[in-house]
Amino acid sequence: MSNRMITISREFGSGGRTIGRETAQKLGIPCYDSELIEKIAEESGLAKAYIADKGEYAPHGHWLANAFAASRSSFDGLCTQDYLWTIQRKVILDLAEKESCVIVGRCADYILGDTHDCLKVFIHADLQKRAKRIVQVYGEREESPEKRLRDKDKRRKAYYRFYTDTEWGVAQNYHIALDSGVLGIETCVKLIADLY
Amino acid sequence: MSNRMITISREFGSGGRTIGRETAQKLGIPCYDSELIEKIAEESGLAKAYIADKGEYAPHGHWLANAFAASRSSFDGLCTQDYLWTIQRKVILDLAEKESCVIVGRCADYILGDTHDCLKVFIHADLQKRAKRIVQVYGEREESPEKRLRDKDKRRKAYYRFYTDTEWGVAQNYHIALDSGVLGIETCVKLIADLY
Repeated sequence: MSNRMITISREFGSGGRTIGRETAQKLGIPCYDSELIEKIAEESGLAKAYIADKGEYAPHGHWLANAFAASRSSFDGLCTQDYLWTIQRKVILDLAEKESCVIVGRCADYILGDTHDCLKVFIHADLQKRAKRIVQVYGEREESPEKRLRDKDKRRKAYYRFYTDTEWGVAQNYHIALDSGVLGIETCVKLIADLY
Repeated sequence: MSNRMITISREFGSGGRTIGRETAQKLGIPCYDSELIEKIAEESGLAKAYIADKGEYAPHGHWLANAFAASRSSFDGLCTQDYLWTIQRKVILDLAEKESCVIVGRCADYILGDTHDCLKVFIHADLQKRAKRIVQVYGEREESPEKRLRDKDKRRKAYYRFYTDTEWGVAQNYHIALDSGVLGIETCVKLIADLY
């Protein structure tokens, strides 16, 4: 395996996606983020919006939601989320076979694990800075962006734990973890590109 | 407050102490590690070995140990560990008033908090690499260095949680967290010195 990968896990609103794109650009390799969802959609035959949304929910959420989900969807005996996970895993492993690249989110760090030449990055920032960013960059208009952030973090954490059985955001699971709020996006890009 | 600080929290055997010393040397500023224990000994009148050991135990460990500790030692109505904590806090805050420096361990990241110009670093490495290191560098001769590492990590975690009410080793609590086992000591030193 000679392809060299970078995986970026990130808190919502921390600028992890931007850091992924800019690092990839600097290194002249592709970055997969929303493109990953397109690939998963192609493989699975499911709608992109559905994948983008469901890819963040662990199967065992609210019992009522699960009861409905279980009755509504089944692929080869798998619930929708488990089916999506198998497709996602395949798409990410295929990418690693094909080319060196940056992958943002989707538990790529866990999927590529220690069997690939992979720099595992985690990007975070404090709640206030992230709230400011999602209002500025994404034009979030909700009354409490902080509440939305906490909800998103909680979902990503539960999803990550469910499928990887390890803790999201624990320093030991990454080669480098950076506070983009204090260090700035540009410095994070430089550090990651230099390490690569 | 114009002094610029670096705090290094680290897993036992990850090379955090070496990284602290070499970074300080590179930047031409002092590094406090065992020197901190000397200063705490001076201020408290307690023996250095006692401080080095007790500084890693949270007060509420084994109930029997606590029962003995409570009956044995008391400073101004504080248990020994709490008394040591107040001295440690004072010594670290005094250092930050006096000069720019690197401080290894002793919850300095939490003590200096957001009120000081402080780069908060966490160093970790996987268990096998740390076990190899403590045998090579410290000449550990115990049958299971892994067991000793797990025990040390557990103690540091409990101590940190008790006095800071936050989680040791969670990426969000540091500006930069590095895997010294994968990146190497030299690269970690360079990254931290560049950031500073």
